Parts: sequence; structure tokens; C-alpha cells
Amino acid sequence: MKIKVNENFSNIADSYLFSDINKKIKAYKEKNPNADVIRLGIGDVTLPLSSVVIDALTKASLEMGNKDTFRGYPPEYGYDFLKEAILNYYKRFDVNLSMDSIFASDGAKSDLGNIVDILGDNDVYIPNPVYPVYLDSNIMSGRRVHFINGSKENNFLPMPNVNYKTGVYYLCSPNNPCGAVYNYEQLKEWVKFAKFTGSLIIFDSAYEAFIKDRNLPHSIYEIEGAKECAIEICSFSKQAGFTGLRCGYTIVPEELMCGDYSINKLWKRRQATKFNGVSYPVQRAAEAALSDTGIKECQKNIEYYMENAHALSKLFDEKGIYYTGGKSSPYIWFKCPNNMDSWSFFEFLLKEANVVGTPGVGFGTQGEGYFRITSFGTHEKTKEAIERLRKIL
Amino acid sequence: MKIKVNENFSNIADSYLFSDINKKIKAYKEKNPNADVIRLGIGDVTLPLSSVVIDALTKASLEMGNKDTFRGYPPEYGYDFLKEAILNYYKRFDVNLSMDSIFASDGAKSDLGNIVDILGDNDVYIPNPVYPVYLDSNIMSGRRVHFINGSKENNFLPMPNVNYKTGVYYLCSPNNPCGAVYNYEQLKEWVKFAKFTGSLIIFDSAYEAFIKDRNLPHSIYEIEGAKECAIEICSFSKQAGFTGLRCGYTIVPEELMCGDYSINKLWKRRQATKFNGVSYPVQRAAEAALSDTGIKECQKNIEYYMENAHALSKLFDEKGIYYTGGKSSPYIWFKCPNNMDSWSFFEFLLKEANVVGTPGVGFGTQGEGYFRITSFGTHEKTKEAIERLRKIL
Repeated sequence: MKIKVNENFSNIADSYLFSDINKKIKAYKEKNPNADVIRLGIGDVTLPLSSVVIDALTKASLEMGNKDTFRGYPPEYGYDFLKEAILNYYKRFDVNLSMDSIFASDGAKSDLGNIVDILGDNDVYIPNPVYPVYLDSNIMSGRRVHFINGSKENNFLPMPNVNYKTGVYYLCSPNNPCGAVYNYEQLKEWVKFAKFTGSLIIFDSAYEAFIKDRNLPHSIYEIEGAKECAIEICSFSKQAGFTGLRCGYTIVPEELMCGDYSINKLWKRRQATKFNGVSYPVQRAAEAALSDTGIKECQKNIEYYMENAHALSKLFDEKGIYYTGGKSSPYIWFKCPNNMDSWSFFEFLLKEANVVGTPGVGFGTQGEGYFRITSFGTHEKTKEAIERLRKIL
Repeated sequence: MKIKVNENFSNIADSYLFSDINKKIKAYKEKNPNADVIRLGIGDVTLPLSSVVIDALTKASLEMGNKDTFRGYPPEYGYDFLKEAILNYYKRFDVNLSMDSIFASDGAKSDLGNIVDILGDNDVYIPNPVYPVYLDSNIMSGRRVHFINGSKENNFLPMPNVNYKTGVYYLCSPNNPCGAVYNYEQLKEWVKFAKFTGSLIIFDSAYEAFIKDRNLPHSIYEIEGAKECAIEICSFSKQAGFTGLRCGYTIVPEELMCGDYSINKLWKRRQATKFNGVSYPVQRAAEAALSDTGIKECQKNIEYYMENAHALSKLFDEKGIYYTGGKSSPYIWFKCPNNMDSWSFFEFLLKEANVVGTPGVGFGTQGEGYFRITSFGTHEKTKEAIERLRKIL
């Protein structure tokens, strides 16, 4: 063919992180067929959905087989019953949302990727290290990307800097992969900076349900003025274990204006044109996850994971190894001992303890020398991994 | 804020088609509270899902509540079980697809909208009239759009023209809103033209399951050479009544090359970055819809709708009114009598017969003077509407 393709795609680094990890594990197992390798690299939930969620999902599925209760195209922005449930959920954080500012979707990843559609040629500021979708989706659309660096000095919570200009800023709190969480003062500073420079913050709160510390914000809208400078993207994936069901949501306040342009109206138009709404049974399942019983049941799963996180944290405390996360996040991000680089430590851990994690450098250059382990395994496997780690760290 | 938005959005015409229709119906009903208004404008399916689909959907939903059968993130391009079912479905048309060329998604609308992400600054050729997503998604990304005009002369099946250059061509067959279907000779001519000019065809076959005539192609890949110049986008929405469940698929053959660029690889990268796969229970439901029993049950619903379409067609035959569709499509597209324009006919129909349809001009300037009615109503309502139409046409 002689048509033109989007050549920005050639500027995206091919990511082989997880396939490289799998290759290395496979090679190791071939050489050591009896090795009992424990995976602490899992970024996906492992516990089944709660019973109220399953009840709502199957009930709505059956409705689709009956002519009196069948439903066709869902509303593009989500059924009112789900938007109301989200609106009520935010009241827990003293945040009042309007129904029109809530957009249900098939997941946070879609919204994080698609949000670039409504934005122009801005300078884009992305944390390093961070979840790779922000970077890749902006490179695909040819944006000028700058990094806001996380490091031991700022506890992997980068703050505004006088050199940063008007632009689009991605923040992720609790952070993936570092598990670090911005506090109120820090988010206030970000909102102040965004309002002063006329910038937009895209706030990824996918892991908010892991926050237990009452002194940490779940939503950027807990900060005054944030509705005039921030979009928030959240998900049922980690809160309610929906990674396999697919449901997320994005908040685009009506207060977000660029001159005469309403960002809310642009997103409405984008979604109405390129998206046809979320599966009806999945929306009913999401509604159930936000009921009082649903929240309680989903929190039980989160507590299960957090027991792992706390046990892992204790080990690093005991060993005096620098780490972030593990308190209000399923992730623990630690400094590789003996100044090892991320991949050397990966090999060391696999060989000496038969434990697998994720090299920090896979999430950005600032992750070099760091390592991520997660708490989504079983209690038994995690305990066993801790015993092995204790011996070699 | 001082960031830049995507200003191409201001070039999209705000579509008030369906809200204008609803306003007019509401105003009419307020003046005539006893009027029994019949809606023949429905573009959505109305019959419930077939029982094998419901069984698969509820079974998979229950699996998500059990720790041994729970599934997390689905594969980004679809589970193999679904891709195999699609691959087998295409064998019915003597089309052999590779597993790697099949991409499951949450619906054809998403794929039709998102496909622009991987394309560069091409001339884009869009039928007029047609489903509005092609036009709007290209205007949003600032493309140069040209129209390929449908008319009575070409039976609303526009063909290649010496003035058309290398570019991206959207074809929709069976066409929405015209119901017209390209035959083998016509598609051969399009494929020949695309290969000669180095163009890409985006073939929307969302309504293929309505084709009963064995002399009409269901897939563009029934034409030799099409894998080197065409992407096909299809859906379970109309075939199996999935408008409320959300599942579609896109075929991007590995043979599609632009110089060194593989279109298949670009789409893989786009989907892996901005999409996290289709809900597991929905994929199981889609698999069931493509089983032998599933296809039979889904076809029963289609036959129900087609009885309406045939009854409506007969009326237009009887009255000698020019129309397309109604044979291998749920849509009937007809010339408004007495050279009325689309909206005048809408008012006339509402007032004189209490029947509602869709003004053709709402699908493009070439639709002026035409009107769309659909066969998604009940037999009873459709029969009653036909009696009323018989009196006034």
C-alpha cells in the first residue's frame, strides 16, 4: 500500500519487560526442573469476585434473555444507576460530583490512552518511573514528553519544579510501580502549580482503595480548586477485582475550561463518537461493588493482599533496606542491595531464592537499581518467599 | 487552563438528529395525547439474547466467583477460544483467517473510531450517506475528507472513480442506512482499485448476518487479494443481539504492508497500549453465539426482523416507490413521495400516520429527499404501521 501510517509508532520503545522475564524463568526452570519458583511479580488480582458482585452479574445476565428485561445499547457515558453509585462513593471522601462529570468505561487503561484524543500539541510531563501507558500513548500521538523524576530524595513522589511549564501532567497515586502516595499538602502544591501555570493534571487513582491511612487523599478532588485543573481516572479493577470484567470510570468536571472549550464537552463528544458504553451486566456488577455490602466484601480481598504487603514490608524494615509502598498499596518498591542494577538483582533473586519480581528499570530509567514485588500472591507463597528472602538479603 | 485542546473538534457538526426527532415526537404527543405513535426508527435490536448465549454468559459469570476458575486480565486481542470461533465462522464464507489477524474488542464502533490512531495524514474517502462515525472520527483527527456519493443512479452503492486518489476508503455493506449490499463484481472492482492505487479499504460488515442471498459476499476477504488492501470490522451486535453486551472484532491481515510497516503490528501495538481486552463472560457469550446451535438461534431472531423487512418492502413494491435494502438488511431506504424533503416527510408521516422514521438527510447531504425505516419493531406494530402507510403513500 502507499498510504501513510502514523510514524510516531516507530518512536515507541518495544517493551519486552514481561516477555524477557518469562524467558528467563523458562530457561532457569529448564536447567533446574525441581526448583519451586515463587512469583512475586503479579500485577493482577487473584482472588475471586465477591458474592454480591457475582449475584448482580448473573441476575443482569439473565435479564438479557428475557424480552421484558432485555436491554440494547447502553448509554454512552454509563447508566444512571452506576453513575449514582460512583457519585455516592465519592461522598465518602467529602467530594461532591455532578452526574454529568462521570463517564463509565471498559477500564482505566482505555481512558488513559484515549484522553490524548481531546488534547492538542502540549508539553506533556510524565513521572519516571511509572505505568508505561502514559508515555506510550503520548509518543503515539507525537507529543513532546518531559519526565518528572522520582528518586530516593523525593521518596518517588516528584513535586512541581520552577522549570516545569504549562502542560499536561500525569500523576499516579498510589503510584504504580512505587506504591508511594501523595499526601494532602503535596497534592495541594500540585493543584496550586497547575492553576498558576494553566496546566491540566491527569490523576490516575486506580489503586485508591488500598489507602487505609486517613491522612492520605483518595481523590484529587479532595483538594480545593482541583475541579478547575484535573481529570481523575479510576477503575474497579483493583478495588473490586474487575480486571477480567472490565469497568472503569473517568471524572471530567464541568469546571474544566480552556478558553471557550469545555473539556467535559470534548470528552462527551469523543466518547459518543468512538465508544458505545459498558456491558450492561458489568455495570450492574460495578453498581453492586459500590453498595455498602459490596464495599465491605471487596475490602476483605484488599485486606488479604495487604496482609502480604505488611509481611513483606516488615522484612525490609528488619533488613534496613530502603523501600516505598506496602502501606497503602499492593506494591513494594525497594533499593536492590549492594548497589546491584535491577536485572542483576533479578538474576540473583531467581538463582538464590527462586523468587521472581519485576526489575524497576522496566518502568523508566529512574527505576534502575530498584525492584518491584507485589502482594497479589497467596499468604502461603508470600510467607515462603519472605523466609527465602530473609536468608539472602 | 492554558493548555491546547484538539481544535479539530470544532469542525465536527453537532448532531442533533435523534434528539430533534425525540423533541418533535414529544411536541406532537403533547398536542395529541391519544395518538398511538409507532416507531420505525429503531436502530437497535429488541429481541432477547438466545438461550445458549445466556447459558454461556451466566456460567462464565459464576466462574468469576470461584477461586479455581476466576480469571483476571484477558488477553488484549481476545481469548483463543473466541478467536478460533471467529476463524471457524469465516470458513462458512470460504475465508481462511490466521489467529493473529483477529482482534476482539468491545464493539465495532470503538474499532472504527480507534483505527485512525495507526494511520497518517491520508486523503480519506467516505460514503455519503453513511453511518456518521467514519466522518466524525476522521474530522477529529484533522484528516482531509472526500465523499463518495451514493445516489439513485448507483443504487446507493458508490463505485471507484478515476478522480479518486490513493487514500483510505470506508465501505459499509450491507449499508447503514441504505441497506444496499455490494455484490462480488462490485467488491472485486473496489479491491482492484485499492491495489492499483495503493489504498486501504476499511470494510464495515456489521450487518453481514442479514445477508441471505447466496450471490452476495459477507466478507471482503471473499475477494482475492483483499487481504493485501483491506481491514474488516464486524460485530456481534446485530448478528447475535449483543448491543447491550458489547463485543465486536476487527480483522487486520498480516499481508497488509505499507513499505516496511506492518499494519497488523501497528494495530497490535495500539490495542496493547490503549485497551485491556473484552470482559471474560462476554467473550464466552460471543463464543456461544458462534457455535452451531448459537448461529441457528441467532438466525431465528434475524428471521423475525426480516419478516418485518419483507412486509415493508412489499408495500414499497406495491406503491412503486424507489427503495434500497429490506432484502439482506434490516433497513429500508426510500425516496420520499412527491419530492418531499426528508424533514417535511418526517412531519407528514408523523401527522398523517403517527409513524416515526429517520430523515435520510441526517446521514449525509446525499440523503436529502430520502427516509429510513427499520425492521427492529414487533410484527404487530410493523403490520399496523404498514396499514397506515398504505393509506397515505
